[in-house]
Amino acid sequence: MGQLVMKQIAVVGLGLMGCSIIVSFLRAGYDVVGVAPIPDEAATGKLRIREQLHLCQEMGLLHQDIEYYESRLLISDDYADLKYSQLVVECVIEVFDIKKHVYNRIEEVVEKTAIIATNTSAIPISQLQKFLQHPERFMGIHWAEPAFATRFLEITCGESTDLALAEGISQEAEKWEKEPTLLYKDIRGFITNRLMYAVYRQGFELINEEYVSMSGLDKCFQYDIGSWITLMGIFRRMDYIGLDHYRKSYAHIFPKLSNSPSVPQQMKHIAAIQGRGIHNLKGLYPHTDESAKKLEHRLVSFNKEIYSLAERYRNKLKNINL
Amino acid sequence: MGQLVMKQIAVVGLGLMGCSIIVSFLRAGYDVVGVAPIPDEAATGKLRIREQLHLCQEMGLLHQDIEYYESRLLISDDYADLKYSQLVVECVIEVFDIKKHVYNRIEEVVEKTAIIATNTSAIPISQLQKFLQHPERFMGIHWAEPAFATRFLEITCGESTDLALAEGISQEAEKWEKEPTLLYKDIRGFITNRLMYAVYRQGFELINEEYVSMSGLDKCFQYDIGSWITLMGIFRRMDYIGLDHYRKSYAHIFPKLSNSPSVPQQMKHIAAIQGRGIHNLKGLYPHTDESAKKLEHRLVSFNKEIYSLAERYRNKLKNINL
Repeated sequence: MGQLVMKQIAVVGLGLMGCSIIVSFLRAGYDVVGVAPIPDEAATGKLRIREQLHLCQEMGLLHQDIEYYESRLLISDDYADLKYSQLVVECVIEVFDIKKHVYNRIEEVVEKTAIIATNTSAIPISQLQKFLQHPERFMGIHWAEPAFATRFLEITCGESTDLALAEGISQEAEKWEKEPTLLYKDIRGFITNRLMYAVYRQGFELINEEYVSMSGLDKCFQYDIGSWITLMGIFRRMDYIGLDHYRKSYAHIFPKLSNSPSVPQQMKHIAAIQGRGIHNLKGLYPHTDESAKKLEHRLVSFNKEIYSLAERYRNKLKNINL
Repeated sequence: MGQLVMKQIAVVGLGLMGCSIIVSFLRAGYDVVGVAPIPDEAATGKLRIREQLHLCQEMGLLHQDIEYYESRLLISDDYADLKYSQLVVECVIEVFDIKKHVYNRIEEVVEKTAIIATNTSAIPISQLQKFLQHPERFMGIHWAEPAFATRFLEITCGESTDLALAEGISQEAEKWEKEPTLLYKDIRGFITNRLMYAVYRQGFELINEEYVSMSGLDKCFQYDIGSWITLMGIFRRMDYIGLDHYRKSYAHIFPKLSNSPSVPQQMKHIAAIQGRGIHNLKGLYPHTDESAKKLEHRLVSFNKEIYSLAERYRNKLKNINL
């Protein structure tokens, strides 16, 4: 297939993530339609998008004034307004029947060539795909929060997805200033979550076998991996370190890594106390209202800085064609 | 035991890592003795230390001029100069018999209360410890490169290490501007390497089962984990996200993670071609002389920036007592 031609993109669902994805598309220069399936969402969404555009402005991410971007956004509660969108991204809650209903409504109005995507991180793409009349045009597009100021993007093919369309979206995503990763097959947790679950499994084993405390483990992962990950990926780093060291240690260490299928005791305890971390002040670490708020606040500010740092090195590495 | 009182620290072995550890101690305000067991090392080490001090100066890490720090450093080929050091860090090559010889020479001259440590990442602390007359004063202290501008530090007890001494070094290490992690028991790969091996195992499985390409996997780990790891550790991040999501997915995903004990085909291939990554231009990725040099160069510059970024947020988080 040829290059996709995209002028108008739509998002259905104006929650936190939906709004942040809309802002990402506005920044990238598209006309955007935001459909609010829940009555109050149109009003709250509009305010939230304005706030996020202000944040983008502070971060130096906008080429035009805020009014310009707002003029290119239509917020609506009418699915009919999706008619001319070349891509529709569904961002509603993770409930099977609601998503099914939303896909039906979308397919009633869009063109046959329109691509439909979901931001789900919980439900397999191949399952959701079955609700579509034209499942080959359906795929997962998984953002990190805030979508307008992170580069991470996982584009996932379900069983029936047309790979060429997913490749097209992957190319298009470079215009969104993303560094997209294409998943040829659907897998629970996609890539980064799955890799991190391998870390959690190994990490809990080291803690529970009393090699190290939780905060000790956290600290060394933070400062070791943090010192290079934003510059290069994990396999490129192996090339940087030199591979002979790894060759020997793979054979020694792989057989000794954790293979446990069980939920660690700490997570069982969290389940028993219904812990939701900083959101109800019951977590793996102690938190107070104040420390929770400050952590959220710091992340907003940290995110600005790491985004801009990554940008400078992203360009440099691209130039040297690594 | 009481607080350690340290004025003079020594490093044996003036290779790249040894020099960089010396600079870390100089910066922290100690008198430092560098013993060069190999004839040429004294001269090359001296030059390298000067270069690294200049780099520290550029990074704004020095409170005095370079001559001041050099005046507090004695480089020698005589083990007798270790006599008054309260801590001696061994940084010689990873060869059993050489290390044994070095420990014997050190123990001949130092005081009974002196602590002896190794920077090994390859040989178990408990094994090396057996070479010591006073094994209880021996431990691992594992730095990241460059030691003077990274915060990562793993302090590892062998079977016979006096825990109180390791705790003392851990406290002292805060003066070195480190974020030390104490390992109560020795384990191959220590903490971060072991966690990363869990990532490598899972990552190669995802690649070899054709979910994703190597560069695709690298990209999403880089940009997802990179966007938060320098601000918070992995378990603190779970508290930030909210734990209810994790509770469910642990039970689903753990049993499906890779348990493979085998070396992945890619690493077998690397062994067959004797690949050493950017060091002989045979790696997991293609490299040229030019791209290899540029990557090394970029890392020096990236390291300055991430160190200073981490510093700003480190203090902020310490203030809120998380």
